[in-house]
Amino acid sequence: MNFLIIFGGSSFEHEISIVSAITLKDKIKKHNLKFVFVDSNRDFYLIDKENMKSKFFSSGEYKKSIKLEITKGGFKYKKGLLKKEEFVNFDVAINLIHGRDGEDGKLPGMLEFFSIKAITPNIEASVVSYNKVLTKLFAKSRGVEVIEYEIITEPKTKFDFPIIIKPARLGSSIGVSVVRNQDEFNYAFDVAKEFDDLIIVEPFIEGIEEYNLAGCFANEWIFSRVEKVQKKEFLDFEKKYMDFSRKEVDLKNVEENLEDKLKENFKKIYKDEFENALIRCDFFMKDDIIYLNEINPIPGSLANYLFDNFDEVLEKLAKNLKKEKEIIIDYQYINKIQMAKGK
Amino acid sequence: MNFLIIFGGSSFEHEISIVSAITLKDKIKKHNLKFVFVDSNRDFYLIDKENMKSKFFSSGEYKKSIKLEITKGGFKYKKGLLKKEEFVNFDVAINLIHGRDGEDGKLPGMLEFFSIKAITPNIEASVVSYNKVLTKLFAKSRGVEVIEYEIITEPKTKFDFPIIIKPARLGSSIGVSVVRNQDEFNYAFDVAKEFDDLIIVEPFIEGIEEYNLAGCFANEWIFSRVEKVQKKEFLDFEKKYMDFSRKEVDLKNVEENLEDKLKENFKKIYKDEFENALIRCDFFMKDDIIYLNEINPIPGSLANYLFDNFDEVLEKLAKNLKKEKEIIIDYQYINKIQMAKGK
Repeated sequence: MNFLIIFGGSSFEHEISIVSAITLKDKIKKHNLKFVFVDSNRDFYLIDKENMKSKFFSSGEYKKSIKLEITKGGFKYKKGLLKKEEFVNFDVAINLIHGRDGEDGKLPGMLEFFSIKAITPNIEASVVSYNKVLTKLFAKSRGVEVIEYEIITEPKTKFDFPIIIKPARLGSSIGVSVVRNQDEFNYAFDVAKEFDDLIIVEPFIEGIEEYNLAGCFANEWIFSRVEKVQKKEFLDFEKKYMDFSRKEVDLKNVEENLEDKLKENFKKIYKDEFENALIRCDFFMKDDIIYLNEINPIPGSLANYLFDNFDEVLEKLAKNLKKEKEIIIDYQYINKIQMAKGK
Repeated sequence: MNFLIIFGGSSFEHEISIVSAITLKDKIKKHNLKFVFVDSNRDFYLIDKENMKSKFFSSGEYKKSIKLEITKGGFKYKKGLLKKEEFVNFDVAINLIHGRDGEDGKLPGMLEFFSIKAITPNIEASVVSYNKVLTKLFAKSRGVEVIEYEIITEPKTKFDFPIIIKPARLGSSIGVSVVRNQDEFNYAFDVAKEFDDLIIVEPFIEGIEEYNLAGCFANEWIFSRVEKVQKKEFLDFEKKYMDFSRKEVDLKNVEENLEDKLKENFKKIYKDEFENALIRCDFFMKDDIIYLNEINPIPGSLANYLFDNFDEVLEKLAKNLKKEKEIIIDYQYINKIQMAKGK
């Protein structure tokens, strides 16, 4: 298949998205890939595969690439002196913009508006996972446990230290801090505030076990292996992404019973909400209870490292994308008004 | 000010949006208006003010109008034989697409992506009000009462008749029925299913009082008068919209105490979520308890009939629109990786 990977975006995770796309270039082996870069100015560029190197973007060299416009069915550009309109050829787009633009619903909405077939969470799924408060409300409504939380407007909380403080609408641990005393709290609050006006705190539970599970529904459930996250304490942004490709994930054998429970919780979250998306759910476990920590509707490099045959997963999902409901507009109502008015 | 009213859309409420825009043409007196029509095919057209008549759209005549493309800062078109690019001139757009495209987050996302200043709910606010289940979760989390509900996948419920059945993601009472027995339930379930896969039921409370309150925050709270909804039972789609302009709203004197309570609930819903939008909250009251029924983030004709000086409300809101957070991308992270790699 011919995939078009869209990455970048006006997002705090812009650079992660670049690294994510570069990673996928090597990990997707059986399919043809094209790349569309959304720069910080939200201009679209068609990027040649051989230019998929981080320096090409950080240096600004990408600006010499073909500039695209989003339009019905895909992306177009003007070719040659006669400025003939050409269209970028592909079967299915992949939304790989992490954070704002990609995961807040903007690109998902545009892809749907312009009838572009894509592997992406839809708008609602994006919003539900982008805002951590909504994630918790949503998960609870589906019978999935979450860690208790408090929305704060100043560095004060009902919880005892240690706590974890998070901007409500960011992924990749940006702006997140573990806080052990009031001084740290004051500082961490200011840090979080730089990223979002909505801030939450949760009790930080030492030694909690963390499990990640990725998957999708493509006419059948497809699950990744379960990753038991190995970490000393808490992975901040740099620790997490300086080793982004995670070539050697420590996939300890997770007991079957636990794996089933994780899958069951994953299904409760995914069903009828995350269709067309390949997502990763991050779970906590304590005292045999599973808690949803967060939903990554566009996980880093699509969590390819958790799947045995990632090419096949993409293909299955791409072939089973659900279309938007068709709405027929026949002007019955206006015709009725006109008749009523005798016009 | 120069407003650009965007209406139509690929929505079950497409025709309502047309009527809504035509109504506003007469109700907005002090400002200059331009109109952009989104047809069922999602093409954009610039509509002359004198063509703002329902027949112009139902007849397909609108297709002779100038076709537009959405782009950074607004809308553009090609002029003359030389196909020179021209931009539509306006200060602030108004998103007046009811239902899908306008209230599901698509247009809000595009307006934000293309940095188009607009009176519109943002993506998150759209999603939270578009999906009635999310509305209830959201309202409860903010301390606003809602009518209890059940998500159903077949015509069965824990509630006693009468009940009210609703597709979760539609406005304007489309697909909504009051059901008094199992036969009616079976039929109404099929009707609702035509509009959405997610269906909810609520107990139908006879004689419940309904109050509507519109407003916005534009550096200060601006509230409309309170409308006590007069109806025999339940307004279905036709009853509600065949008399759409509501020239004579029966604004009974609502006791001050109740008005204050409604405003207090409105603020809980609106604050930090509906910025840049002029919304209408529909409340129920029973036994002195106020319940949120629904949030209309783009109410019909912007609920102009509830305001004493609608021109002024629009101007105040337009002058106090909040901008999206600026994100500076400096490639620090990629530069760090490159240094670490010794490149």
